[in-house]
Amino acid sequence: MKGFFQLVSSSEFIAFFEKFHPLQEEMILINDGLGRILAQDIPAPEPLPPFSRSTMDGYAVRARNTFGCSESEPALLKIAGEIAMGQSGQLLSLENGQTAAIWTGGELPQNSDAVVMVEYTNQLDSNTIEIFRPVAPGENVIRSGEDFEKGSVVLTKGQQLRPQDLGVLSGLGISQISVFKQPVVAIISTGDELVEPDKPLAPGKIRDINTTTIAALVKESGGVPVSLGIVSDEFDKMFDACIKALDIPADVVLLSGGSSVGRKDFTLKVLEKIGGTELLAHGVSIRPGKPTILAKKENVALFGLPGHVGSAIVVFYLFVRPLLRKLSGSGASLGMQRIQAITAEQIPSVIGREDFVRVAIEWGDYGTPNTAKPIYGKSGLLNPLIRADGLLIIDRDTEGLDQGEKAEVILFP
Amino acid sequence: MKGFFQLVSSSEFIAFFEKFHPLQEEMILINDGLGRILAQDIPAPEPLPPFSRSTMDGYAVRARNTFGCSESEPALLKIAGEIAMGQSGQLLSLENGQTAAIWTGGELPQNSDAVVMVEYTNQLDSNTIEIFRPVAPGENVIRSGEDFEKGSVVLTKGQQLRPQDLGVLSGLGISQISVFKQPVVAIISTGDELVEPDKPLAPGKIRDINTTTIAALVKESGGVPVSLGIVSDEFDKMFDACIKALDIPADVVLLSGGSSVGRKDFTLKVLEKIGGTELLAHGVSIRPGKPTILAKKENVALFGLPGHVGSAIVVFYLFVRPLLRKLSGSGASLGMQRIQAITAEQIPSVIGREDFVRVAIEWGDYGTPNTAKPIYGKSGLLNPLIRADGLLIIDRDTEGLDQGEKAEVILFP
Repeated sequence: MKGFFQLVSSSEFIAFFEKFHPLQEEMILINDGLGRILAQDIPAPEPLPPFSRSTMDGYAVRARNTFGCSESEPALLKIAGEIAMGQSGQLLSLENGQTAAIWTGGELPQNSDAVVMVEYTNQLDSNTIEIFRPVAPGENVIRSGEDFEKGSVVLTKGQQLRPQDLGVLSGLGISQISVFKQPVVAIISTGDELVEPDKPLAPGKIRDINTTTIAALVKESGGVPVSLGIVSDEFDKMFDACIKALDIPADVVLLSGGSSVGRKDFTLKVLEKIGGTELLAHGVSIRPGKPTILAKKENVALFGLPGHVGSAIVVFYLFVRPLLRKLSGSGASLGMQRIQAITAEQIPSVIGREDFVRVAIEWGDYGTPNTAKPIYGKSGLLNPLIRADGLLIIDRDTEGLDQGEKAEVILFP
Repeated sequence: MKGFFQLVSSSEFIAFFEKFHPLQEEMILINDGLGRILAQDIPAPEPLPPFSRSTMDGYAVRARNTFGCSESEPALLKIAGEIAMGQSGQLLSLENGQTAAIWTGGELPQNSDAVVMVEYTNQLDSNTIEIFRPVAPGENVIRSGEDFEKGSVVLTKGQQLRPQDLGVLSGLGISQISVFKQPVVAIISTGDELVEPDKPLAPGKIRDINTTTIAALVKESGGVPVSLGIVSDEFDKMFDACIKALDIPADVVLLSGGSSVGRKDFTLKVLEKIGGTELLAHGVSIRPGKPTILAKKENVALFGLPGHVGSAIVVFYLFVRPLLRKLSGSGASLGMQRIQAITAEQIPSVIGREDFVRVAIEWGDYGTPNTAKPIYGKSGLLNPLIRADGLLIIDRDTEGLDQGEKAEVILFP
């Protein structure tokens, strides 16, 4: 395993993701498509709507037969028939001076080009309609292909599917689509002191918090978590767990462990022994999250996450989530909302290191800014985390922020 | 069925949701808890952490044994042992002048109250450690219960569970929780002109767009969609479909149909024939979405949605989603991000009606405002919908907005 061992910046870390490529494609039903990422451009296989439709209840006409009519001088048209809902308009052809009753959504009859709203008509007898307002050609009509012409690109590769996008697909008769596979993420929690959450707590032991937290983070980011359980602080056990993870096969392996010196060395040695791995980063100049490790074996990413759950969450949002998005085909962005806020109090920081400070947001009313209040606490504590709404960014060239200064906050999803 | 038939405002419409109460509770595993709503307050059943832990690799001490020491005059302490990871600190008790090696996360031995970082120590011989810096009691220690005291409320009823919240639960040994059930939402699409997306398209027919779109909207809002398929425009068929929906039993029934006059009447007549229903609203003074109907049978909500998918989506986000959130136990709010933006062009509106204008957002850089560009198009078109990022609000007392005016935009989730 080759690599270098100096701290990289967060943007240098994210630049390593260019070495990874999106996962393979798979076909799914559109009903399972919400939130998935398209792996293909979608051209319209047919025009939408498939035929010219009325947008009103009323009468289909040749527009020129209505020109010049008014309340005092209505146009008189002969009723040629009615287009019932779901019936083809092609079965009826209007001759000059004829009209046909039509409903909203109905297909226009042949040789008609506009619809007069029922409000501007009066039926004189069973055969004859008075028209009080002229219509222009195309008025109250959605013409065939007006929404999407046949062959036009409707949705594009890399797009995350929303309800309205799935609606368009169903409207075009596309019931299956090709999307990128969801990354499978193996989670390995290491520590002799850990027990499962549902097991009794022996003296000196604490419950494993990271597996539950990280599995939920993976789901939230569109991945499929596979928990490999708790592994004790032994080289062989950690190595075996990694091999098991690669055999799933996982697309991403997350090693989350304590921060003791011995354990950290294990992670590097284990990655080395696996073979074919390239160490991309060992340490990032951010706080929290400095001891983060990233290695690569073919297209599989192996992360060593900091042991404290508070630090692990920050590293997950900043790095693991963007990589999962890249593997899912939507690009290595955070995919989280960023807002601007002013600081509620002074926040210290150190030059040369990017700080991500947990903050609670007090939402500003219309026209007044949002306020970000830092929530301090030792990084092993969960309490500050569940009170926080997001992470305030202090860049590496800034030596802390004064009270009332503007800053950017990444909101938790 | 009693009721009144005048247009209500959007806030009056939402006020009707007070007549509905949250669904029953159910027990689930925390691993299935992401995004679910807690139905109980969660008090800590044990202190977290369960014992006082070191936050550093180093030496556990009685703080007073280090007072006054310095680089030139180190304190000399005798090594009483080591607390291996996962081993109980209670097995060892420090006497005056003694110390014990400890790792990050390890349980402090009896009669110790602080930890000296390994960096400020030197091992003189197998028995003796030099300490170069004094520590205060509690330094480099998270004391038992510092995160959560036993019995303190950790998470509260009505809270939507995030990854860090699930992490706290696992840390406290809580592997099952009581959450509100997810609302079951029956979707009925009516229209003689409709065919399923995967069926061939006969002349005069169009594909059903609403079922797919609405099912995805329901999922996105935390509900469980059950599609009852396409129902033709006949009173008996619509009535049977509603009875089937109530028998599921559905918590919400969404009738989405065309906007032809006959069809609209059907919806009201069907709701009446069901029996035990109360008509709450028939028409809302918003655009789009005016012909929306809301009725109630016991705790079940029955909606008549506008037929055009563009209008149905707006009504879903404004009304159905808040009701689903109310039934899910989290309160009748939109649950969507609201941002401020300036208008890219003039937007006309009419006094006395609230307008929700589809807009695309151009995100402002730091310090510059976001810009909202209206996307116009007939309400039967899908094209404007898939280009929009959200809905710009023009309230009922405003007669349109000028270019460059401030406005509020509800972002699609």
